Amino acid sequence: MTATRMQRSTDALLQRYTGVRADSQRLAAPLSDADATVQSMEDTSPAKWHLAHTSWFFETFVLSDAVADYTVFDPGFAYLFNSYYEAAGPRHRRGGRGMLSRPSLQRVLDYRAHVDEAMAAAMPIFGEKHRALVELGLHHEQQHQELLLTDILHLFSQNPIEPVYDRTISLPVAVSEQDAGTGWIAHDGGIVRIGHEEAAADAFAFDCEMPAHAVLLQPFALGARLITNAEWAAFIDDGGYRSPALWLSDGWAWVAREGIDAPLYWARADDGGWTQFTLRGRRRVAPDAPVTHISYFEADAFATWAGARLPREAEWEALCNHQLSQAFDTCWQWTQSAYAAYPGFRPAAGAVGEYNGKFMSGQYVLRGSSWATPQGHARATYRNFFYPHQRWQFTGLRLARDI
Amino acid sequence: MTATRMQRSTDALLQRYTGVRADSQRLAAPLSDADATVQSMEDTSPAKWHLAHTSWFFETFVLSDAVADYTVFDPGFAYLFNSYYEAAGPRHRRGGRGMLSRPSLQRVLDYRAHVDEAMAAAMPIFGEKHRALVELGLHHEQQHQELLLTDILHLFSQNPIEPVYDRTISLPVAVSEQDAGTGWIAHDGGIVRIGHEEAAADAFAFDCEMPAHAVLLQPFALGARLITNAEWAAFIDDGGYRSPALWLSDGWAWVAREGIDAPLYWARADDGGWTQFTLRGRRRVAPDAPVTHISYFEADAFATWAGARLPREAEWEALCNHQLSQAFDTCWQWTQSAYAAYPGFRPAAGAVGEYNGKFMSGQYVLRGSSWATPQGHARATYRNFFYPHQRWQFTGLRLARDI
Amino acid sequence: MTATRMQRSTDALLQRYTGVRADSQRLAAPLSDADATVQSMEDTSPAKWHLAHTSWFFETFVLSDAVADYTVFDPGFAYLFNSYYEAAGPRHRRGGRGMLSRPSLQRVLDYRAHVDEAMAAAMPIFGEKHRALVELGLHHEQQHQELLLTDILHLFSQNPIEPVYDRTISLPVAVSEQDAGTGWIAHDGGIVRIGHEEAAADAFAFDCEMPAHAVLLQPFALGARLITNAEWAAFIDDGGYRSPALWLSDGWAWVAREGIDAPLYWARADDGGWTQFTLRGRRRVAPDAPVTHISYFEADAFATWAGARLPREAEWEALCNHQLSQAFDTCWQWTQSAYAAYPGFRPAAGAVGEYNGKFMSGQYVLRGSSWATPQGHARATYRNFFYPHQRWQFTGLRLARDI
Amino acid sequence: MTATRMQRSTDALLQRYTGVRADSQRLAAPLSDADATVQSMEDTSPAKWHLAHTSWFFETFVLSDAVADYTVFDPGFAYLFNSYYEAAGPRHRRGGRGMLSRPSLQRVLDYRAHVDEAMAAAMPIFGEKHRALVELGLHHEQQHQELLLTDILHLFSQNPIEPVYDRTISLPVAVSEQDAGTGWIAHDGGIVRIGHEEAAADAFAFDCEMPAHAVLLQPFALGARLITNAEWAAFIDDGGYRSPALWLSDGWAWVAREGIDAPLYWARADDGGWTQFTLRGRRRVAPDAPVTHISYFEADAFATWAGARLPREAEWEALCNHQLSQAFDTCWQWTQSAYAAYPGFRPAAGAVGEYNGKFMSGQYVLRGSSWATPQGHARATYRNFFYPHQRWQFTGLRLARDI
Repeated sequence: MTATRMQRSTDALLQRYTGVRADSQRLAAPLSDADATVQSMEDTSPAKWHLAHTSWFFETFVLSDAVADYTVFDPGFAYLFNSYYEAAGPRHRRGGRGMLSRPSLQRVLDYRAHVDEAMAAAMPIFGEKHRALVELGLHHEQQHQELLLTDILHLFSQNPIEPVYDRTISLPVAVSEQDAGTGWIAHDGGIVRIGHEEAAADAFAFDCEMPAHAVLLQPFALGARLITNAEWAAFIDDGGYRSPALWLSDGWAWVAREGIDAPLYWARADDGGWTQFTLRGRRRVAPDAPVTHISYFEADAFATWAGARLPREAEWEALCNHQLSQAFDTCWQWTQSAYAAYPGFRPAAGAVGEYNGKFMSGQYVLRGSSWATPQGHARATYRNFFYPHQRWQFTGLRLARDI
Repeated sequence: MTATRMQRSTDALLQRYTGVRADSQRLAAPLSDADATVQSMEDTSPAKWHLAHTSWFFETFVLSDAVADYTVFDPGFAYLFNSYYEAAGPRHRRGGRGMLSRPSLQRVLDYRAHVDEAMAAAMPIFGEKHRALVELGLHHEQQHQELLLTDILHLFSQNPIEPVYDRTISLPVAVSEQDAGTGWIAHDGGIVRIGHEEAAADAFAFDCEMPAHAVLLQPFALGARLITNAEWAAFIDDGGYRSPALWLSDGWAWVAREGIDAPLYWARADDGGWTQFTLRGRRRVAPDAPVTHISYFEADAFATWAGARLPREAEWEALCNHQLSQAFDTCWQWTQSAYAAYPGFRPAAGAVGEYNGKFMSGQYVLRGSSWATPQGHARATYRNFFYPHQRWQFTGLRLARDI
Repeated sequence: MTATRMQRSTDALLQRYTGVRADSQRLAAPLSDADATVQSMEDTSPAKWHLAHTSWFFETFVLSDAVADYTVFDPGFAYLFNSYYEAAGPRHRRGGRGMLSRPSLQRVLDYRAHVDEAMAAAMPIFGEKHRALVELGLHHEQQHQELLLTDILHLFSQNPIEPVYDRTISLPVAVSEQDAGTGWIAHDGGIVRIGHEEAAADAFAFDCEMPAHAVLLQPFALGARLITNAEWAAFIDDGGYRSPALWLSDGWAWVAREGIDAPLYWARADDGGWTQFTLRGRRRVAPDAPVTHISYFEADAFATWAGARLPREAEWEALCNHQLSQAFDTCWQWTQSAYAAYPGFRPAAGAVGEYNGKFMSGQYVLRGSSWATPQGHARATYRNFFYPHQRWQFTGLRLARDI
Repeated sequence: MTATRMQRSTDALLQRYTGVRADSQRLAAPLSDADATVQSMEDTSPAKWHLAHTSWFFETFVLSDAVADYTVFDPGFAYLFNSYYEAAGPRHRRGGRGMLSRPSLQRVLDYRAHVDEAMAAAMPIFGEKHRALVELGLHHEQQHQELLLTDILHLFSQNPIEPVYDRTISLPVAVSEQDAGTGWIAHDGGIVRIGHEEAAADAFAFDCEMPAHAVLLQPFALGARLITNAEWAAFIDDGGYRSPALWLSDGWAWVAREGIDAPLYWARADDGGWTQFTLRGRRRVAPDAPVTHISYFEADAFATWAGARLPREAEWEALCNHQLSQAFDTCWQWTQSAYAAYPGFRPAAGAVGEYNGKFMSGQYVLRGSSWATPQGHARATYRNFFYPHQRWQFTGLRLARDI
């Protein structure tokens, strides 16, 4: 994290804390205890686990450190709800998170109340270090809010009865968009500065977004908008999933092994059109909406088919605040940049140093944010990252080319 | 099933139906919706699934066939709750039973009420065929009652907090037994008759218990009682799990691959003694209680270590009604008999013909019954069967030897 | 083994030894060093390994025990060529047998010559115990002779150029047979005696064939001849591989997982007929020849389709010396009998006690012998055994039914 | 490849062709047919396959295209020896290369002679395009020469008798080196130009080394020399393989899953020191020699333990021609740069366009060259690449740090 000077007032911080924490519970409100318990694959976590883990984060890294007489809610929870912090002790194996029918959802909510009460009481005494950790914990929780939604979507997709999460939820990526512009936005290249400026007052960023630094770019252009479902359907119709020449070697092996022939959650309707399972249930694919739930391998194959390539993350960041449509709040956009340390990168101090750095192998950076990303969470320098075969997130693509 | 003449009166049958059905719900009473939803491994099923599948059995094989205007509770349930009946149509994959956070436990209970109401109303009109299917369905449900308990025990064992199913449940196999006698019960061999006599009035048996037939035995003796935990601990202390010469080849491969070194659910206490996870929580192993949760491979290795062998199923049946202690109601007893068709075996007619016959490869017969087997379910001719590596059932052993 | 009184003269024993040993090398003659080195799957072994392992058997269990000053050929060979004898020390993992490009085939032949020379020199001094072990070793080597052929066939089948082992080898099972008779051979049942009589002078049998004992049979009939390729093609044409109702549950899972739709080595010709890869290369399937290279699962499904069942091993043995055609020298015949200990079975003394007994789980007995079984190796009491999914042996079937 | 103007004379090109081709056969000379046949893991290929595949390359991409009446040696070889060129038709699966006991090594050498004769005859008629493909084919063959050695080393390491490839081969990385200097070589950063200049007359490079382009670097320093075995032993002694905090998340999972605790081929000697299996057999680890056979994960963990990091490939290239010792001819050096397209990258035209580009996911760049790299093959811009867990190549590391 290494957020810079945290200057919020205690009141402002508490208000923000309260708001973010309430958001998580609002997202979990449509879920039963059972919905919140099941783990649908090793990549996902139960909603209950998200709710508890984010609380464990505050309890472990803030309350237990800052509040002398803080009593942990349940001594057994550290083992259950530590995700991957080696420094924070042993923990339950990731693939076994779905075995936890107990503690119940209600007990996890009690845990949250216990932590929230203690946090509210202690907020005035937190110094710079702990205020920074609170800020980190809130951004951490916002990440889990989006994961909670993508994980529930995946779970419900595994159920033949295809439950509906919320029949009224707004799904910008599942409805037709206004025409988002066409063509390419060009950039002359040269030295650009990317990453988070530590001097930025009152601004949060994760450690992996730092240090800000100069990068030399060649001239390039980015697509003005995201690729749509209609364009993806054309790729399918043109045999895109059956043409090895379009694919990375690892990607083609994945397609063959898994029998991939369309984005995740797509299915053929009886009339030959496409439907898509969403948090509102199964719906007709909207032709003008951006395609989502595609892997890096698929995004790369599509770009090759289109005679283009994927953007580098520095290219995306150089243009994102300019003419790009749908840079934020629509879907995450695969870049061709492997997730790696910026020059001069230093992990955050303490156990939270495990937050980002140790994942810097095998994953690709996604930029922007999705409709499901909490407001205020993302920014131009934000680096999301996933493995190239993963596609249960709200992932799409924007093309790039050399000019 | 092929049960013989069903002569119960309608009232008696309804009373029995009501009792068995209520027993299932009583067993599920300590479980939350989440407890009843999770599948802890491919071999087990969620409690909710057991409750629904047993109802689907009556709905599919009895009500839909016998009652002209019967309306199925939910047309989607046939896909969800068919276990393995190919003749009854396509079905959800076995390994995905734990994805069903919906329907909820409450909705499954509503399903049961719907089926029970229809069954009660239709009971007077059932003829011989459907009465026989009701009887089969009740024995089927009793099998699932025991599975519900063993599956919940397994699920809770996967949870680091080790939830207690019922702190007051009676666990004969987890407490010290009165001395059950010692020594051997001898049999002179010769021709004995085993299996279920079709002529037996008013008696139920599964198709695999028939036809009754003569078998020629050599002289043999069976242990008067089951092997105890103390005896098993001696086997461990003597290096039983580290001596390949004691094991079947497949068994030794299993021990090495899985790192087996004690019965399932056993753990070393700090003082070097043994504890065992049970439906009452983790408890001290009772030395004089019969050992349970052992695989066929372990039972066979123990017998070799003890200079004995496992019984053949015909030997067990020939002696069970005589001097054997703990033949029933304690734990299932591995035999060295592969589960196979009796001479003249014919699967039951119709879809329920898939009940037993198609499982006649790779499994071993267990005889007797366990403390968790519903009263009235087992009998001398009963043939339970599992794969030789499985041990989440209440499985133990009795020795045999040639004389 | 536990063979009874070995009364052969030294000369006769040496002559037999020399003949069997020469047979092995004759079988390996068409193979290059490379052919003799590769392991095509975990179930098979390289030809070089068969040649060395059978020599190790004599070196370890006979020469090293009986000859005071015997010098082992290479102290490293015990580790390489022990198959599974735990009592004979640690050994190379089974799946790694194909890594042994060294020692070369020539060096293995030198090893054989070294052992043969020592055996010839020592033969006069062997007493009863070692003569029995020689006999066991020769039967052991004959088993490996057949494995050598089936393993080479499998290896060559994995090579897209489909090498020919021997263009002139006689393949009774790959050419049309004279009509082998039809109909059923009936047996009235009753008490029959099966297994090897220990008193039989000068006769060898493996320990698992003993003790001879009485078995009570119900009336039954066996097919007068083996099932043919034409009959198997009819099973395929009738959808046999697509009808789950015909299959054991484990068998159907195997069919689905492995995509099985014909016997091993069968392929469709361009004209819709069938070809079969053999030791003489790919050939047209001969309609009247017995079907081979089928698993137990397939044999059982065929029998169900045909309204029959597979024989029990005692039934087969009771009739084999009477009217059955093709009982021997054609192909091994699956029985429905799980491979298990006969009443009173005792493993042979010493390390060779691991020969049979420890494989008594999960496998099925095959009776008879195949065209590739060395002359004089099989007999009416012989019990071959394989797992129900295995089919790279020369395996076929004969039907049975209750009467 | 896209090599620029090929100005060698025909004689010079033929001389070079003849020399490279002879080198391959010289490397294979110590191998038996069996040695040359076995595939020790999916990542490796049999020596015979390397010898044939490199010939197939010339036959397919040069002779069949350039020589009107060229007759392929064996029409079946295209299927056997195509590696991964989708455009060149279907092919044998990679994991099955070890099944090819036929064709024999001798027949593969005949194949080579056939191709070499045709190449010599046709060399004068080759125009620019085919001369470029010849050059590409020779560099391709040199890559396979190094693979042949690393693959044989791996095969022999799987054999308990640990065969020696060549008792007299020079192994610079297995003997103590003169002190190679210490300390750091600093660079001020700024814009540097990396990659292969297309204008470079008479110089070959692979397509992935182009286009040359400017990169902006931050100030940094590289270690003057490679990390030694003694330094690696200190890392082991300090618990490096047991400290999760040092490892990337994927790396730690790999260590735990595979039980990694030392470089590949290292084993503890009885006196507690280390030995290493090499092409000269098992030898004492030389303390001052560079460590080899380490994965990216291990290299990264070591760098973290040392308070440093791995170099970026542009940093390495910027300094390699300056003060770095052991830049070439010792061992390949892991960089922290994911293997990715340079700005403006265009795959080579035709089927050889599959040579590099499709592997640009999941792999890391290694720079320099090893003692086993053929002379004249590597250069400052050369980009080797492997997956982060792979370590059967001659891979080592050099440290880097920010200044």
